[in-house]
This record gives sequence, structure tokens and C-alpha cells, in this order.
Amino acid sequence: MARILKGKEVADALTARMQQDVEELKAQGVTPTLCIFRVGERPDDLAYERGATKRAQAAGVKVKNLILPADVPQDVFDRELNRVNKDDTIHGILLFMPLPKHLDTERARQMLNPAKDVDGCTDLSLAGVFTNTKTGFPPCTAQAAMEILHHFDIPVSGKKAAVIGRSLVIGRPVGMMLMHENATVVNCHTRTIDVPSITREADILIAAAGRLHSVTRDFTNPDQVVIDVGINWDEEKGGISGDVAFEDVEPHVQAITPVPGGVGSVTSSVLIGHVIEAAKRTQSAGIAGRV
Amino acid sequence: MARILKGKEVADALTARMQQDVEELKAQGVTPTLCIFRVGERPDDLAYERGATKRAQAAGVKVKNLILPADVPQDVFDRELNRVNKDDTIHGILLFMPLPKHLDTERARQMLNPAKDVDGCTDLSLAGVFTNTKTGFPPCTAQAAMEILHHFDIPVSGKKAAVIGRSLVIGRPVGMMLMHENATVVNCHTRTIDVPSITREADILIAAAGRLHSVTRDFTNPDQVVIDVGINWDEEKGGISGDVAFEDVEPHVQAITPVPGGVGSVTSSVLIGHVIEAAKRTQSAGIAGRV
Repeated sequence: MARILKGKEVADALTARMQQDVEELKAQGVTPTLCIFRVGERPDDLAYERGATKRAQAAGVKVKNLILPADVPQDVFDRELNRVNKDDTIHGILLFMPLPKHLDTERARQMLNPAKDVDGCTDLSLAGVFTNTKTGFPPCTAQAAMEILHHFDIPVSGKKAAVIGRSLVIGRPVGMMLMHENATVVNCHTRTIDVPSITREADILIAAAGRLHSVTRDFTNPDQVVIDVGINWDEEKGGISGDVAFEDVEPHVQAITPVPGGVGSVTSSVLIGHVIEAAKRTQSAGIAGRV
Repeated sequence: MARILKGKEVADALTARMQQDVEELKAQGVTPTLCIFRVGERPDDLAYERGATKRAQAAGVKVKNLILPADVPQDVFDRELNRVNKDDTIHGILLFMPLPKHLDTERARQMLNPAKDVDGCTDLSLAGVFTNTKTGFPPCTAQAAMEILHHFDIPVSGKKAAVIGRSLVIGRPVGMMLMHENATVVNCHTRTIDVPSITREADILIAAAGRLHSVTRDFTNPDQVVIDVGINWDEEKGGISGDVAFEDVEPHVQAITPVPGGVGSVTSSVLIGHVIEAAKRTQSAGIAGRV
């Protein structure tokens, strides 16, 4: 029987810390504010928006919603993004991507003000992940996986970690973040030969392939901590399930995150934490500017 | 007896290709130009400058030297860097770092025009390495290691690669570049426990720890290709040697680069290749701009 690493516990601890930070900022006359910038009404976006709004409220962070119709012309989109980019009362922008096909997602990614890039999608945020500096912010899901390890006091330094996946939103950044904390990391991917032989050697396994139940018992070892980042539609269950075949794996590892209720429950807290951090950075820059 | 992967052969092949590219650019009225920007007279910098100048001449690339005294004031340094940043006749800038202590190396790194960052030190270049896009340029030494693998037709896709080292100039970028070419990569570092047990499993070993003769036979396997990136002063020999204990390792691996005469001989060719690529990019942007 594995220890079940529940995301709610992590999210609640993060929220408690954030409430303190928000109090301090408000005492200085700053209300950390997130702009949720959405084009159209995709169900996934709406679900994440509800979660983020709830977490923001719990932490005392203000949310402004900017919603554009799915057929918004490029020039209107650009004008609105530029406006929130420049608006000093907005500290973070969550821009749902990919955008509808007639809009240029890559250009939008580059247009986004890196100082407000709280979901870590601009080049400068990704450079920060690679160089381990506070340039922008890491992608929220990658940081959520790290927050779970930290919260449950799972040692990272000197440990072996295997990441299944190499995407820019999770696989590559979480690999870097683990290495910055002195883990020895291998990223497996679609061209890796015999993935289980590699992941079995790891103390920490991050499953982020995006394939339902693709991680089975033979990928693991009894001392392993398994973090399941997958969010997949499970036809059989009629709900979401992870990349890990939970029933098969859970009895045979040391600890594991459930899906739902694992990494996904922490992501929106990390996002709100970034908004607060962005507000703090603006504040220190402002104070430095006044000296 | 291992196959000895000589850098000269790779550099010569690169130069031959570059000569063609330079011909084409010159036919369009563009002479690719490198600015070597040096503060003071450090012997290492002077040695690299000589090598780069020679390679530039061989390829038909022009070199402009901008040399400032070791005690140049910050404002003069900034003014000169800004001037070459903006000079349209200069396509690439090689800025020797670290700068003397009274100058701000980190600020200089960020000031450098990313389009001219031919040694891959700015955040945008590093973001390009991480995201696998042509934003800026990868660090020359990391690309030199890859050029050697390519030139000698050493398969990378689906292979296991181990990198010893995680620096921003070589360990991390070469790990990323190997992964972008579908290798399964592990970066070992000072906090890795039992490095030999990990590197022994690799088809390709990149030694980039910067420690003389630290890689011995027990780190390798008989089918392994070893790329030695180390450039260390060898007291006993009275010359430079690599990270690999060559005499010990060479008889027991499939292929190996010597030091000197390996990766180091390819680096300046890669630099000159970047200057030509920068000139090409300016040229296509110019043509696109005129349409």
C-alpha cells in the first residue's frame, strides 16, 4: 500500500502561505491581480478558470476576466493583449492557449509581457527554467509536481529521477527543475528504447506522457515515488484518469499521486502564487526605482 | 583500439561548406562580419581569438577587432557594446567573458543583441536551445560536440547518452541538443551518486566536468563513443589534456576524441558558421522586409 500524496493538502498549505503574502502587499496598497484572458468558450479552459478563480479568492487575489469571442479579429486580440500587458493594476496574465486557428498563437506567446507571464510560456520564462534564474516563471504544472515533492518532504538531492515526456509545459521544465535541486535526471520520450528498464532505476518517477494508463507496474520499483501528471479522458470510468495504471501500480510503490486529486489540484495554487510573486517583484522594483 | 575522432577533419568539412555560403552572400553584396570584442589581454582569450581569426579567414568571413584596455570604465564599455550591437555591418559579436571584475558581466550578457549572439550566451539563445527553435545560437562548444557526432555518422536517435557536467556553456545545452535529436539523456553532476554506474550504460558519453583525467575506464563500455570536452592544464605533460584519462580509456571504447585536436578544434568553426548564419538571417529578414 503506497502513501497517497493528495494535492489538496499541498494546495491548502500553499494558500495559507499566500494569504500572509497578500496581507502584506495589501498593507502596502497593492492588490495582486490576475487577468484571465480567454478567447471563446472551450470546456477545458472554463474548468481551469473556475479552479483558478476559486483559489484566487481563497488567497485574496483579485481576478479580472477578459473574454473575447471565438471569432475575434487578430487586430482586436492584439490591442487587448497589449492593453493588459501595459496595465499596471494587472500583475499576472493567464492566456489560454492554443488560440483559435485564425489567431497567431506563437506571436501571442512572444507578445506576452514576460514579467506577467505567470504560466511560464514565454521564451524568457523558459530561459529562466533552463538557467535557474528568476526570469519570468516556470510552467505551473511543472512547479506543481515539485511542490508536491517538497510538501511531503520527499528527498530530491542526490536521487535518481526519471521523467516520461519532454513537452515544454511539463517534461522538459520539470526535468530541469529536478536537476537544479541536484537530482540526476533522465527524460524518456517516444524514441526511448525500453522505457521501463530506465524508469525502474529511478527513485522519483514523473509520468507526463499524456497517455492513459501507459505506466504499469513494470515501470516502477517498490521504493519509488510516482508523480502522475497525466490528465486523460477515461472512457471506461467516464471521468479523468492519469498516465499511471493506478490499481496496478499503487500496491507496489512507496508513494503515488492520485488522478484526479493530485498534481492537477496544485496547479492553480501555483498559478496564484506566481501572481503574488509578480506583484512582489513589481513592488520591489518600484521601491528600488524610488530610492 | 578506438577510432580516433579528429576535430580537424570536422572543422575542414565545415569550412568547405561555409566557403560556399560566403560566396553566395558576397554575390548578394553581404560580407559576413564578426566583431571580436575583448577587454584586456588574457592569454586564453588571445589564443581563442587567433584560432577564430584563422578560421574566419579560411571561410572568407571578415573580422573586426574591438579591444578595450583592462581598466576600461563601465560607461565606455557600454557605449562600445551598444555601438557594435547597432552596427549593421557586423553580424556576430564574440564577447570574451568573464569581464574584468569592475565590469558587470551579467549586464553585458543581457545587453548583447541576441541576433548577434554567435556564442549563445544570452537568455534568448539559451531559450532557443531549450525550446529547440532558431532563437539566437547554441553555445559553440555544445554544438561542436554535436558536429563531431554528425560528421562521423554516429547515430544519436534512440541511443542512450550520458553527459558529465551541467554548465550553461556545455553540459546543459549539449544534453538538450542530444535530446532534440531523440537520444535519451542523463546529465551527471557533482551531486550524482556513483557516476560510473550511470555512464557505463551510455552509447555516447560527453565528458564535460572540467576535471583533468577524471573519466577512467570504469566509466565506459566497449561499444561507447566518448566525446571529451575538457580543456585542462596537465602539469605532468606540460600541456593541455582532457577530462578523460585517454591512455586508460582509449583501448577499451569504440571511438574517442583526442585532447588537444578534438572538440576544441571544431569550436571556432562553429562560431564562424554562426556568423554566416546570422548574416543569412539578416539578409532574409531584409528581403522579407522589402517585399
